[in-house]
Amino acid sequence: MNKPEHLLQILQNEFENHSYGEEPAELYEPIRYIMSLGGKRFRPLLTLLAASIYSYDLSLALKPAMSVEVFHNFTLMHDDIMDRAPLRRGKPTVHEKWNANTAILSGDVMLIRAYDLLLDIPKDQFRQILHRFNQTAAEVCEGQQLDMNFETRSNVTEEEYIGMIRLKTSVLLGYALELGGILGGADEESVRLLYAAGENMGLGFQLKDDLLDVFGDPSKFGKQVGGDIIANKKTFLLIEALTKAEGTLKTELEKWIALETFDNDEKVEAVKKIYETLGIKEFTEQKINEYFARGLASLHALKVENSRKEALLTFVQQLVEREK
Amino acid sequence: MNKPEHLLQILQNEFENHSYGEEPAELYEPIRYIMSLGGKRFRPLLTLLAASIYSYDLSLALKPAMSVEVFHNFTLMHDDIMDRAPLRRGKPTVHEKWNANTAILSGDVMLIRAYDLLLDIPKDQFRQILHRFNQTAAEVCEGQQLDMNFETRSNVTEEEYIGMIRLKTSVLLGYALELGGILGGADEESVRLLYAAGENMGLGFQLKDDLLDVFGDPSKFGKQVGGDIIANKKTFLLIEALTKAEGTLKTELEKWIALETFDNDEKVEAVKKIYETLGIKEFTEQKINEYFARGLASLHALKVENSRKEALLTFVQQLVEREK
Repeated sequence: MNKPEHLLQILQNEFENHSYGEEPAELYEPIRYIMSLGGKRFRPLLTLLAASIYSYDLSLALKPAMSVEVFHNFTLMHDDIMDRAPLRRGKPTVHEKWNANTAILSGDVMLIRAYDLLLDIPKDQFRQILHRFNQTAAEVCEGQQLDMNFETRSNVTEEEYIGMIRLKTSVLLGYALELGGILGGADEESVRLLYAAGENMGLGFQLKDDLLDVFGDPSKFGKQVGGDIIANKKTFLLIEALTKAEGTLKTELEKWIALETFDNDEKVEAVKKIYETLGIKEFTEQKINEYFARGLASLHALKVENSRKEALLTFVQQLVEREK
Repeated sequence: MNKPEHLLQILQNEFENHSYGEEPAELYEPIRYIMSLGGKRFRPLLTLLAASIYSYDLSLALKPAMSVEVFHNFTLMHDDIMDRAPLRRGKPTVHEKWNANTAILSGDVMLIRAYDLLLDIPKDQFRQILHRFNQTAAEVCEGQQLDMNFETRSNVTEEEYIGMIRLKTSVLLGYALELGGILGGADEESVRLLYAAGENMGLGFQLKDDLLDVFGDPSKFGKQVGGDIIANKKTFLLIEALTKAEGTLKTELEKWIALETFDNDEKVEAVKKIYETLGIKEFTEQKINEYFARGLASLHALKVENSRKEALLTFVQQLVEREK
């Protein structure tokens, strides 16, 4: 019953039948559009899997789980405006397909609708969940602000970068698992462990994203390999390389960053070689494994029968092993 | 104790000491900025005055009241981006002083912080208030979308216009009073009457804004008299004039609307004269009085001693009589 494929099917049905509102259409059509672009729905899935460890009845967890996904898509809609992104999952972004005003206002309504999906939470859990949702939501915005700040800075440290992705990405995964635990009826210590699991896995996922963008298999990776290098995106790899490079290697790296016109393939190859010389690939892989190990350790530390957490562990293991 | 001046002082103190967050400063400074621009704080005052009808202890109503004001300022921050407004209360708007990205993201956090101010609501009122807040918030966004839609339409009807300002302006005043009633412990019928009062007063206020923009006393009115005429803003007056004008009067009105270059004073005088010929001023005044009368009737229908609602009635009367 708590098999991920089964829960995903339930979630997809709920999303398909969920009404965000109708009139004016200019406001609600973009919400249906972005929610229909797909995505793996793995955040709400984490909520349901965490809840299923503690409860056989997931009906009360369904809407709060959806609220995590609606919130996540709200951040995508607004981030895409700020990042001037033309595409989202291969389709035009909302501000491209409509305009920035529409993306601002539809996004605002999505955030409100995320709160709507919390309305049926049992009275006794209301304050705790609303408080944690607010806190997480604000942290995600703080992460986005830091990410934008970093774009114009050349001296971002590893610590600052980890702090930024923790806010922008990880806290929401932590909250997704925590939320499931609370709704399932987990004790305080287990809720804390679930949050820590999501937080650490999230850091691992983001670093893996950074890594795959450079060293991913082009036949498996969904996006253009090397896109981050071409755009000088301040990823974990670039920050490490800027810290570790010395002498001519540093000069060369800085030259490629400063160049305004260049051959894409040439730049990707050159920077990739610098990363390899500096051992950035191995260093990043090691970090990723550390975060994943910490996350899995938190899940293993949950004091319930193994059979109850098997579905969540299997699902998380799949996420860890993904190569795109 | 429930004198408006006294309650306003309490509110101002709370706002001054309230923390919206600190880091990153780029995110929180614009929130402190827009909240410091002033404004009459009359929405949270309405909440406190409504609560004071039913309860002597307003401590629990204070933060929810502030939440209405934070939400209102969130809408101003985002609306100003959409409307490309350079000034707000005589000072640069957030997207002008910083940039649009900052205004988007700071606004998002403000909306989240508005929900934070609801955390201490008693358990038994949580669901009702969160539900009504969400509903109202979404309606305000719907109103802003309709307002933007109307800008590019030439056939907006009076009914559509009233529907738009009801959403954009009135429902939040209705909610502000309703919220106070719920928190104060009013019965269902009284809560309904408080909402209706705010809704009708709100319609009156917005029409009065439209009227004062054309017929206000320049020495009392805060903004440039005639600004709406210069900008072809689809106000109640213009919509009525477009509906009522016939023959040469209609041709002349449409000529002024279509003109791309003109002398501001000349256009204001000409359109004002058309309004006068059509009796728009008197018609609008009559509508305003009708809405105010309905709003006041709702307040008079509240089944409590007159002495309990005196403060609210006096305050509302002042709002009705304002000339700026």
